[in-house]
Amino acid sequence: DPKLKIFALSSNKPLAEKIAKDVGVELGKVSVNKFSDGEIRINIEESIRGDHVYVVQSTSAPTNDHLMEVLIMIDALKRASAKTINIVMPYYGYARQDRKARSREPITAKLVANMITQAGADRMLTLDLHASQIQGFFDIPVDHLLGASLLANWFIDRNLGGENTVVVSPDHGGVTRARKLAEFLKSPIAIIDKRRPKANVAEVMNIVGNVEGKTAVLIDDLIDTAGTITLAADALIEKGAKEVYACGTHPVFSGPAMERLADSPIRNMVVTDSIMLPEDKKIDKVVQVSVGELMGHAIKWIHENRSVSPLFEKQFK
Amino acid sequence: DPKLKIFALSSNKPLAEKIAKDVGVELGKVSVNKFSDGEIRINIEESIRGDHVYVVQSTSAPTNDHLMEVLIMIDALKRASAKTINIVMPYYGYARQDRKARSREPITAKLVANMITQAGADRMLTLDLHASQIQGFFDIPVDHLLGASLLANWFIDRNLGGENTVVVSPDHGGVTRARKLAEFLKSPIAIIDKRRPKANVAEVMNIVGNVEGKTAVLIDDLIDTAGTITLAADALIEKGAKEVYACGTHPVFSGPAMERLADSPIRNMVVTDSIMLPEDKKIDKVVQVSVGELMGHAIKWIHENRSVSPLFEKQFK
Ligand SMILES: Nc1ncnc2c1ncn2[C@@H]1O[C@H](COP(=O)(O)O)[C@@H](O)[C@H]1O
Ligand SMILES: Nc1ncnc2c1ncn2[C@@H]1O[C@H](COP(=O)(O)O)[C@@H](O)[C@H]1O
Repeated sequence: DPKLKIFALSSNKPLAEKIAKDVGVELGKVSVNKFSDGEIRINIEESIRGDHVYVVQSTSAPTNDHLMEVLIMIDALKRASAKTINIVMPYYGYARQDRKARSREPITAKLVANMITQAGADRMLTLDLHASQIQGFFDIPVDHLLGASLLANWFIDRNLGGENTVVVSPDHGGVTRARKLAEFLKSPIAIIDKRRPKANVAEVMNIVGNVEGKTAVLIDDLIDTAGTITLAADALIEKGAKEVYACGTHPVFSGPAMERLADSPIRNMVVTDSIMLPEDKKIDKVVQVSVGELMGHAIKWIHENRSVSPLFEKQFK
Repeated sequence: DPKLKIFALSSNKPLAEKIAKDVGVELGKVSVNKFSDGEIRINIEESIRGDHVYVVQSTSAPTNDHLMEVLIMIDALKRASAKTINIVMPYYGYARQDRKARSREPITAKLVANMITQAGADRMLTLDLHASQIQGFFDIPVDHLLGASLLANWFIDRNLGGENTVVVSPDHGGVTRARKLAEFLKSPIAIIDKRRPKANVAEVMNIVGNVEGKTAVLIDDLIDTAGTITLAADALIEKGAKEVYACGTHPVFSGPAMERLADSPIRNMVVTDSIMLPEDKKIDKVVQVSVGELMGHAIKWIHENRSVSPLFEKQFK
């Protein structure tokens, strides 16, 4: 009988443990090491012949190492006769390189999709892709989960929401995402509209929508250097918002992110555990809500051949 | 008219300069950087539409980063309509993971070959693959150069060779390589025969062949932690060799390599510049001979549709 097995690589073992717990299995035995010269060495330490294997790995930093781990793991699983190889990738790295914005740019998000597919993956389970179009970069099934309901729960548990709250998108690209959160919170939305009045003049932060006296909740998909979100928070305070929270699925937190967050008027930065945070990034105002149950449920539903798409709405409101 | 263009990524710019000089072109303009989160950003800063492009990159440490650079570069070149994309990879990383030695092992050398091909490379030019079979991992043409003649030249220039010299393979796997060098030096060969008399007993170093009173020249394809080669050198001295030199194409030099080399009776460790050495690894006894001309010639010959295989014998004896 084919078994359901879950393996964690090195990027996010704590999340993989939560997922396995929700599914009701122990994590499979695998060792992920480096040879003396830094090349990755993976040993799968139990039989997986004929089994349905799920590999949990985010391609967070160091992205190239984490990506190579998952590719080598797929290669080993394929050669060891796994029945299906399912990649659980809560954070999909290189997602911002998803189009040629200028001449001679690569489309690395597609390159990565090809690499995962051609290595031998049968299915992808992922969360809040930077652009939904990345699903189409794959010719294997992609289950795309959304974290908005989990982020919403955190605010609802604190009695935020309704007309006294306003969900704010920090740029035009994020309005759909803000709309989704606003539905959960039953709140209106606002949009930060950055404009450069003339060339070589500083951008002006204009706010479309009413924020005065309200609790503003900023939302973005990933928080990288935190420049966008902290500048947006300043603008909201300046325009009379009562208080500012921020949320986002993926805590990339690179470069000056931690100082910016610490210095900003943002009360709490609510993120998920799609990316494991080192201790020095777990500052007080950063809150992590877990996607372990969400992803665990999705794995169970996939394994039972049920459609995964209504999951996040039904289970987690 | 299609042009011949050579681009260097970040692993070995000095070698790429030498190659370009031999070919008689300037290196193409490309910038290779990292975004704040460590993801690789490549900008090709000149048109390559319709051109024959050569990309010089060794997948030396950090192997995953260097590999990802070359894949992203191939993707960008393909999307920018290069006529052909030719990868010049003096050192091919992950080559030791070229077979399943145990259950559930990956064959990463094949995975890497697939990645390079599927990203869009048309041709590979490489040097002293750890196993010649890796050529067969590719379905695109592979030109496989040998460095033995260049290593031989160094010894010949110092009047070493002939019957007073013996070329020594540090293990059974390397005998063919030793044979090749011995032909150039017109010297006999010897083989170090490691045997474990019983389980859990230290290995015994037996030497097949006569080394007494001779200058011994050890040869291996890559020198990683230098354990094999320095133990072999000790055994040779113990068996009465007059002096010991060592050579090898690829100076991987990881972990304890530099201390081991410094402490060993090896007079000179002769390697090539297939891998760029940081300053702290350029110790006195390490000598680098350049493969720049060899690879430059190969590129010219490929460009002129001439067979590359006789190159290293004809030009560099
Ligand atoms: N890792 C990264 N960090 C910062 N910017 C990136 C990264 N990857 C791609 N980009 C750039 O981000 C832009 C796309 O971002 P967006 O408009 O948010 O989809 C493109 O101009 C990319 O060149
Ligand atoms: N980067 C590496 N460093 C050390 N050993 C490796 C590396 N990659 C693969 N190996 C192991 O080296 C062995 C093959 O080496 P060889 O017998 O010299 O071809 C296999 O057992 C591999 O598991």
